[in-house]
Amino acid sequence: MGQKMMREQEMIELYYFEPPNANSGKAFLTLLEKNVDFVRREVQFLEFEQHSPEYLKVNPKGQVPTLIHNNRVITESTPMGEYIDEAFPGPSLIPADPLARWRMRCWSHYLDIDFGPALSMIAWSRFIGPMMRAHHPDKVQAFIDSVPTPERKIAWQTAIRGTFTDDQLSESARRLERGARKVETALTGRPWLAGASYSLADINLLNFFGSMPTFLPQVVNATVSPRTMAWLQKMAERPAVKRMRAESKPAPWSR
Amino acid sequence: MGQKMMREQEMIELYYFEPPNANSGKAFLTLLEKNVDFVRREVQFLEFEQHSPEYLKVNPKGQVPTLIHNNRVITESTPMGEYIDEAFPGPSLIPADPLARWRMRCWSHYLDIDFGPALSMIAWSRFIGPMMRAHHPDKVQAFIDSVPTPERKIAWQTAIRGTFTDDQLSESARRLERGARKVETALTGRPWLAGASYSLADINLLNFFGSMPTFLPQVVNATVSPRTMAWLQKMAERPAVKRMRAESKPAPWSR
Repeated sequence: MGQKMMREQEMIELYYFEPPNANSGKAFLTLLEKNVDFVRREVQFLEFEQHSPEYLKVNPKGQVPTLIHNNRVITESTPMGEYIDEAFPGPSLIPADPLARWRMRCWSHYLDIDFGPALSMIAWSRFIGPMMRAHHPDKVQAFIDSVPTPERKIAWQTAIRGTFTDDQLSESARRLERGARKVETALTGRPWLAGASYSLADINLLNFFGSMPTFLPQVVNATVSPRTMAWLQKMAERPAVKRMRAESKPAPWSR
Repeated sequence: MGQKMMREQEMIELYYFEPPNANSGKAFLTLLEKNVDFVRREVQFLEFEQHSPEYLKVNPKGQVPTLIHNNRVITESTPMGEYIDEAFPGPSLIPADPLARWRMRCWSHYLDIDFGPALSMIAWSRFIGPMMRAHHPDKVQAFIDSVPTPERKIAWQTAIRGTFTDDQLSESARRLERGARKVETALTGRPWLAGASYSLADINLLNFFGSMPTFLPQVVNATVSPRTMAWLQKMAERPAVKRMRAESKPAPWSR
């Protein structure tokens, strides 16, 4: 990783959940696409490391990912993506045309407020909640107590204890299906999500949507969403995506 | 408004809730700051015009604002702001420095997902819900039936019927207070929200935060938030802000 050499010039560290996906994956893949050499700081999700005293010194909100660029602490994965594109050399990941940029930002916003939270709820309900509850109850309680903000405390409690209502779960399932249709429609007229060129929108989508063919095979498959499947294949062939996947350990819930 | 003359060259229309504030105000003020000459298309909120068949032809989601730029239909007020800045000449509203841009985008994102929804809930609970319920129940029901997406139907129902829980209302009140502290802190080190220059972050904040000194005078006032009050004064002196206010009728809930 050339860690020592790099520190002599620029200090670039990324704190992220291992294996990189969702918000962590967005930042990780964007750095790889820009050919930025960065120090990997894995944060172990199932060990609750995101709320450890050490990590709260890095990001007092206890959220992941966090990028440290020299003395700058950059949080919030969506604005972070544009920051990485603008602050480092390498191929541009933001289209030149204002209309394509607008589309890129609408996609990122939609993933942030609609598709992402829906996927997260379903994943917690199916896989992550049960794994979390396998910890000793005292450890779980200590973790919930360590969450630094009240609204995130409520969210973690609901997720860990699996107290989503049936209405909430079916609304999230509906949003995932709508998202799958939306992606297929967008890719019908354009090679990439925002237009003629590969952009942060594709990076952000891959990190939420990449597992949909295995997660919801009845919704994303070669028959009903051929353009989505072709886009996923094209993404899988990108050198940066290959590098990210080669570095990733299997997710705890699929080990 | 030079409407006819303009249409010969470029077609620029903004559909917005009258008087412009919140998301509608963001787009309205950004256009004024860029000196764009645009056709005003008022959408009457209390008359439910945003879900009329005519408006659904413009924006099938029934959301406001919508910008029509030649044949382009631009929605989603936050990406719309960057679109307006990039697609039209005039003074730049996006800082040149990547760090200041990142701050600008973090502020817009925070207003979208945290402060804005909290303010909206409190405003609905105090003013707008009761005014909506003054309509004939059949009209209210017809409006709810006309909402085009299920999740927005639920949101409108809750807002119109005023069925927010006490927990939800106190969480929103807490978020407004936290927001007021966050704004004061940000303005302590910098003249504008994102850094050395006026940006979309200031525009977006004004349209959510502008009424805080009257709305929550115990939280935003010259004693506890002097920098915020000075920023509001500086905003009020901008020619574009003066123009927006001169054009605005008083809000229905303050008539």
